[in-house]
Amino acid sequence: MIRVGVYGATGYAGFELLRILRHHPGAEVRFATSRSHAGANLGDIFPVRWDLPLIPEDKADPGQVDAVFCCLPAGIALTTVTTARAAGAKVVDLSADFRLKDPQVYQRWYGLEHTAPDLLSSAVYGLPEVARSEIKQADLVANPGCYPTSILLALYPLLKAGLVTDGPIIADSKSGASGAGRTPSLKTHFVEANENLSPYSIGRGHRHLPEMEQEMENFGAKGISLLFAPHLVPLNRGILSTIYVPVSARLDILTLHNVFNNTYADEPFIWLLPEGQLASIAHAVGTNRCVVSLTLPTPGQLIVCSAIDNLVKGAAGQAVQSFNLMFDLDETLGLLNS
Amino acid sequence: MIRVGVYGATGYAGFELLRILRHHPGAEVRFATSRSHAGANLGDIFPVRWDLPLIPEDKADPGQVDAVFCCLPAGIALTTVTTARAAGAKVVDLSADFRLKDPQVYQRWYGLEHTAPDLLSSAVYGLPEVARSEIKQADLVANPGCYPTSILLALYPLLKAGLVTDGPIIADSKSGASGAGRTPSLKTHFVEANENLSPYSIGRGHRHLPEMEQEMENFGAKGISLLFAPHLVPLNRGILSTIYVPVSARLDILTLHNVFNNTYADEPFIWLLPEGQLASIAHAVGTNRCVVSLTLPTPGQLIVCSAIDNLVKGAAGQAVQSFNLMFDLDETLGLLNS
Amino acid sequence: MIRVGVYGATGYAGFELLRILRHHPGAEVRFATSRSHAGANLGDIFPVRWDLPLIPEDKADPGQVDAVFCCLPAGIALTTVTTARAAGAKVVDLSADFRLKDPQVYQRWYGLEHTAPDLLSSAVYGLPEVARSEIKQADLVANPGCYPTSILLALYPLLKAGLVTDGPIIADSKSGASGAGRTPSLKTHFVEANENLSPYSIGRGHRHLPEMEQEMENFGAKGISLLFAPHLVPLNRGILSTIYVPVSARLDILTLHNVFNNTYADEPFIWLLPEGQLASIAHAVGTNRCVVSLTLPTPGQLIVCSAIDNLVKGAAGQAVQSFNLMFDLDETLGLLNS
Amino acid sequence: MIRVGVYGATGYAGFELLRILRHHPGAEVRFATSRSHAGANLGDIFPVRWDLPLIPEDKADPGQVDAVFCCLPAGIALTTVTTARAAGAKVVDLSADFRLKDPQVYQRWYGLEHTAPDLLSSAVYGLPEVARSEIKQADLVANPGCYPTSILLALYPLLKAGLVTDGPIIADSKSGASGAGRTPSLKTHFVEANENLSPYSIGRGHRHLPEMEQEMENFGAKGISLLFAPHLVPLNRGILSTIYVPVSARLDILTLHNVFNNTYADEPFIWLLPEGQLASIAHAVGTNRCVVSLTLPTPGQLIVCSAIDNLVKGAAGQAVQSFNLMFDLDETLGLLNS
Repeated sequence: MIRVGVYGATGYAGFELLRILRHHPGAEVRFATSRSHAGANLGDIFPVRWDLPLIPEDKADPGQVDAVFCCLPAGIALTTVTTARAAGAKVVDLSADFRLKDPQVYQRWYGLEHTAPDLLSSAVYGLPEVARSEIKQADLVANPGCYPTSILLALYPLLKAGLVTDGPIIADSKSGASGAGRTPSLKTHFVEANENLSPYSIGRGHRHLPEMEQEMENFGAKGISLLFAPHLVPLNRGILSTIYVPVSARLDILTLHNVFNNTYADEPFIWLLPEGQLASIAHAVGTNRCVVSLTLPTPGQLIVCSAIDNLVKGAAGQAVQSFNLMFDLDETLGLLNS
Repeated sequence: MIRVGVYGATGYAGFELLRILRHHPGAEVRFATSRSHAGANLGDIFPVRWDLPLIPEDKADPGQVDAVFCCLPAGIALTTVTTARAAGAKVVDLSADFRLKDPQVYQRWYGLEHTAPDLLSSAVYGLPEVARSEIKQADLVANPGCYPTSILLALYPLLKAGLVTDGPIIADSKSGASGAGRTPSLKTHFVEANENLSPYSIGRGHRHLPEMEQEMENFGAKGISLLFAPHLVPLNRGILSTIYVPVSARLDILTLHNVFNNTYADEPFIWLLPEGQLASIAHAVGTNRCVVSLTLPTPGQLIVCSAIDNLVKGAAGQAVQSFNLMFDLDETLGLLNS
Repeated sequence: MIRVGVYGATGYAGFELLRILRHHPGAEVRFATSRSHAGANLGDIFPVRWDLPLIPEDKADPGQVDAVFCCLPAGIALTTVTTARAAGAKVVDLSADFRLKDPQVYQRWYGLEHTAPDLLSSAVYGLPEVARSEIKQADLVANPGCYPTSILLALYPLLKAGLVTDGPIIADSKSGASGAGRTPSLKTHFVEANENLSPYSIGRGHRHLPEMEQEMENFGAKGISLLFAPHLVPLNRGILSTIYVPVSARLDILTLHNVFNNTYADEPFIWLLPEGQLASIAHAVGTNRCVVSLTLPTPGQLIVCSAIDNLVKGAAGQAVQSFNLMFDLDETLGLLNS
Repeated sequence: MIRVGVYGATGYAGFELLRILRHHPGAEVRFATSRSHAGANLGDIFPVRWDLPLIPEDKADPGQVDAVFCCLPAGIALTTVTTARAAGAKVVDLSADFRLKDPQVYQRWYGLEHTAPDLLSSAVYGLPEVARSEIKQADLVANPGCYPTSILLALYPLLKAGLVTDGPIIADSKSGASGAGRTPSLKTHFVEANENLSPYSIGRGHRHLPEMEQEMENFGAKGISLLFAPHLVPLNRGILSTIYVPVSARLDILTLHNVFNNTYADEPFIWLLPEGQLASIAHAVGTNRCVVSLTLPTPGQLIVCSAIDNLVKGAAGQAVQSFNLMFDLDETLGLLNS
């Protein structure tokens, strides 16, 4: 059994992670920390029957575990991850602190100096379908953001094959409210979010933009820009990204399907829908899958719909997928129950 | 035009009140205060096109208006109402501060000494269908709570006629989330309230209980106790109270319908559904009506379903109804648009 | 008082229309028809207190009214409108039957031969902000579709001014479930639509596409194509269209705001939000407004967010707005209560 | 591996059952039937990746399996269960056809003659917490209704101990929309159910009443009547029953807790909340648990809140629990993943 510790257990991602680990046959949770609820049990904080004690972060000893999941906010994770790595634990970090390779980009978007540039350079951006072998070797995996997961997995086959003509690529994303976290706010107050739908930080204003541009460039997107428009929708879980991609006018839908099929052959967590079906949030909720559909309404204009559960493939599930790879376990362990 | 001022304009009840007053042909809003948003316009706080300036409370002069609506929290309203009355304005107070006739009961439930017992004794509990003539004469009306409105209007015909045998009467109420106010909290955080339904303060624990017992006694309920169980349901507006009333076994459904029909003949805001139909929240939302249905499944066991819009008949609409009466206007003015 | 008749009163648009007409000071409803519920009262079909008799279509006499609103399905409206016009009534038709100027385009998209091409040529596409003077002269107004209303009003100032460079323009629209009508289906079954979000007919597959392309061309969009992607979202009312428009890179946001401000100066039902604010569905629900926001994340790439209530500005409210113009009434009559 | 067949796989209960069986380590699904979708795969009907063929009922051979789950409507199940038993398969029937011991009561409530009275007399009402040993011996288990599960498990400890004084017991139940099945109807049309809450068949009108009265009598409720009021609430899954139980005035809350604790000691699927906490739907959704809280606001008046997931403990999960018992498997097998 791999011994694991979880930092930040009382946010939605931390709690989802614990739920997955609870039934994971190869992992054993040794500690779970909470800044706001240290001293309580998990069952005091969520409506579950679970006497897992929540300890303060300074009582957690990362030296006693093999792996650490860090579900802390950006800026906070930096220190915790550094400590955990120093203690020898492998780390999957769900924050943004190790996603951006360029410390200056990090500083520009998060307003913080990056205090661990060496660690940063060894961190692997954790999209298993893209970087499986790197993740297997990694000691530190930066788990991608929820929106980027839905968008990058939709773009990877196209960009890798050089099929995207000039941009911009437009990603119109719709997310359930759990993506905004568990801290109450007016925006996520029931009466304000219910029967409403609101765009926010659209265009080039959302913090998930730079990690998408970084990875798109890694996939081969030279000079192709991205417009990204997130929207809050009145449901709990799930992201649907509707992505408009200019492609070569010579490509037909069959060819495009083949490109995706070839890239994602044997991928356990990618589900390419047959032509004529469209990905919806219901296809993905409760699973670790990214569900993708392709529509080519007119030559040169591809629409990719990409659906994930923001808390599973968009956070905790993908983190466990990387964890499985890092410890040479079956990649799907703990992730196929739903 | 009656000149009015509104204290506490940026809660849900205050805002609903302003919406009603905006189209009220006999009233003119002279000021609106906000503790949290003084200096802003209403259109900065809600998604509406409305340049109504929000002023701090100490800048509002109740001496310049004929009437004041007070939508402040319990305890705070006490002072404001006292000031407004001293300045000569008639007052409709939407808080609980003037509902309970016994200052000691007030203190027990609200944890505050009542500092205006004289005003209290002149205040009228503002259910127009019950106390129309008193409201017409009143300078200070205590607008009933939302739950009490739905329950008391359902019980009044029965208690007045002495038809309720021994209790307890059981009122199982279901309320939309706007009843919990506009201040964010975990309980009303979208992800927590959505896809959930939760009881709270059930039995004899909710602050609306004492005002219901006080009024039930006024209606003639000697020694009949009340169990009250509120529930939070995932919708924005509306209360449905399902009320179980032990009545004399000799009463048939026709007789009971007649009792309600006689009591509420010509009431513009009571809608008694024909036998066989059941009141639902959709019957009431957006209106100032209390919608009532009667079911007699077995002799002696009456079930009254009572539906209101918690922000209209349960708050702002009923306040305007009393205001109309206090100023000798048509009782329905401003209240029939929906 | 203008005498009006309503065909198709028991769909969501027909019912919304009756609600508006009920409080309209210049109109009087003389008849309301229903194919499925003839013989019943409106209050039997909807949870409202309203004894309006629903008559079968062949009992309605359009010769006895000045105006007719036709809320029948495409294909059915054709006959009813023809009859009503022959009887001398002015008509606002909410179906698609008179929107497409080219009968062959109609036949291609709706699978029906157009049997009244003469009437068609006299029909005016009823966007008052675009065609006010034509509507004033019209005997037959084709009320625009809900999606087209949200999208065309967002594009009109740009296209009219020739500011759109080559396309495609991409309109990603999100609609509440009332847009799908009142006939039960699996797609709009509560459990299927709730906690879900699904694209449908995306790209160039939705029937609202040809009327948008026709009008865009009228606005001056030569050779600019449109991709349109509608999505069903779990809420009752409202459409938000997020529209990506390639514009000249020389335009700054201030200039673009001025273009909209100039086009829509004095328009009572267009609300251009100040820079920095984004249109959401909550801005528009319950009103006849189209709420627009502009975002220019990068030179040349404009994002227009456009929100309407699909049943008001997207259907019944806009129909009354045209009706007011056709009868030389104040354009806002009956439409400012919310 | 126990070989099982599922009749009626494309309703919500049938599909939930298949989801549970898919990960059940002791069962293997050999066939799944569908009346409406025979010939399709499960993945064509639900948004899941699952190529399970759906066969017509007459192609299913119950002689080739050890057990059959029957998720067919009342009246239809009668024949299928009879055939399956004749072929030697053990049966868990999720319909109402074998719940009511008295064929005349069945006929009164379901309007059908019971054609298999012999089978009926051998059927066991499948509440494992009440009838575990009978279920172990049974060849035919009648799986309880969803509402009865939530109510009977809340009443069993009290009735068995003779603590309920005279009635009526009042059960006010609130159910998510999946309880109404997957066939579209106006009542469960999204726009009608959303932002609404409606009572139906309240008092003594719902078909789940007779099975509750039958079992209450078995628990020892002599002459204690039940009022049952179901309500449809706008969420997908879950039932909360708020149950008002007159008990002896001498009982304090501690004693009552002990009664429940003693009855349900070691029950894996009963969760009695500590005093001061109230059961909500979120406590139960996605699990096979019945979550119970006790409130004693005044001596003699107990309020039991009881929450289940209507599709799990209220249908498919409880069916698997009985199946596990019938085949001498660990009772929790396949039921602890969530």
